[in-house]
Amino acid sequence: MVMSTFDTRLERLQTIAARVFAEKGYHPTTMRDLARETGMSLAGMYHYVSGKDELLHSIQRRCFTEVLQGAEAALAEVSDPSERLERFIRHHITFFARHMSEMKVLSHEAESLSGDRLATINALKRRYVAMLSRLIGDVCDPDGCEVDENVASYALFGMMNWIYTWYDPAGAVSPQALAGQFTRLFLNGLTASTAAPVTPGG
Amino acid sequence: MVMSTFDTRLERLQTIAARVFAEKGYHPTTMRDLARETGMSLAGMYHYVSGKDELLHSIQRRCFTEVLQGAEAALAEVSDPSERLERFIRHHITFFARHMSEMKVLSHEAESLSGDRLATINALKRRYVAMLSRLIGDVCDPDGCEVDENVASYALFGMMNWIYTWYDPAGAVSPQALAGQFTRLFLNGLTASTAAPVTPGG
Repeated sequence: MVMSTFDTRLERLQTIAARVFAEKGYHPTTMRDLARETGMSLAGMYHYVSGKDELLHSIQRRCFTEVLQGAEAALAEVSDPSERLERFIRHHITFFARHMSEMKVLSHEAESLSGDRLATINALKRRYVAMLSRLIGDVCDPDGCEVDENVASYALFGMMNWIYTWYDPAGAVSPQALAGQFTRLFLNGLTASTAAPVTPGG
Repeated sequence: MVMSTFDTRLERLQTIAARVFAEKGYHPTTMRDLARETGMSLAGMYHYVSGKDELLHSIQRRCFTEVLQGAEAALAEVSDPSERLERFIRHHITFFARHMSEMKVLSHEAESLSGDRLATINALKRRYVAMLSRLIGDVCDPDGCEVDENVASYALFGMMNWIYTWYDPAGAVSPQALAGQFTRLFLNGLTASTAAPVTPGG
């Protein structure tokens, strides 16, 4: 992908801003803080975004757009339902292992936007959630799973998204290995739950 | 448990403060905001806590202390490893279904404390994490699980803690039923992963 100078500089601003928002929170951060961190002038930053709100929106939009497009590419030409789910998990984990700050910002600042900006992000998020729900539905067909597909989707997102609180992508467990473990745990739980349900009294 | 008037009023302050912190974030909230929400005077609030920082600390300490004690009580006199894990999950979900605001505050404001206050909270958190790791280790013994026990612990905490982003305890799926589904998914995944691992290439 050939990027213009404008796009390259905007992307650098987004990356640094995501790190600062993740470290000190969106609300306490000022455009002046971001100018200091990026080495840009305030006027220079306003050439790329109209303000902090648009900057947050552009970080969230870029992240959800990229993760959606990447997941679609990862699933292309794969038809086996379990393998499709495995690829979705592996893509999600390896994508966010490269974007840990953005992951925290997506989680903590989901409600910091409003109006049209919030609406566009929520529409992207709904597409991504629907994609996972369909994948899980396909694994459960034709007999269905013992576990509600909606609950299973959110359980998997929780498992995967929580990594921003504990996981170090540069540590002992590589993102590929982590994705492998999550896939094993989730996929076996989902399918085994049909074959041999425990009776958890709920 | 007989509570003094002081304790009852402090608990009410903590409950309302947790809701306000969850809704608008800890940093933007002022003691004046909390006075308005609680109907207390500023001087009245300072009778219970020395400031916003001590209030956040007291919310986190109470929550982790109660969830730890509750989990210990739920496991008492149960020896089967799977049933112990099931009880831990059910207790965690039903406890936090009653404390959704606190759950969000624990997640989002984990880094808002510092010094001794942070240290006491982290010590409680470590005890709770260690408790779950032991339970998972006991389920995996004697043959071990295919999934790393540390990864499995965080996967389960992620699955359970993420509910603050999507779950409505008053909705169609009751906390008991949700706990049952999570137990089935996780416990079967953990044990099935030994018997019939998929090969996710990780």
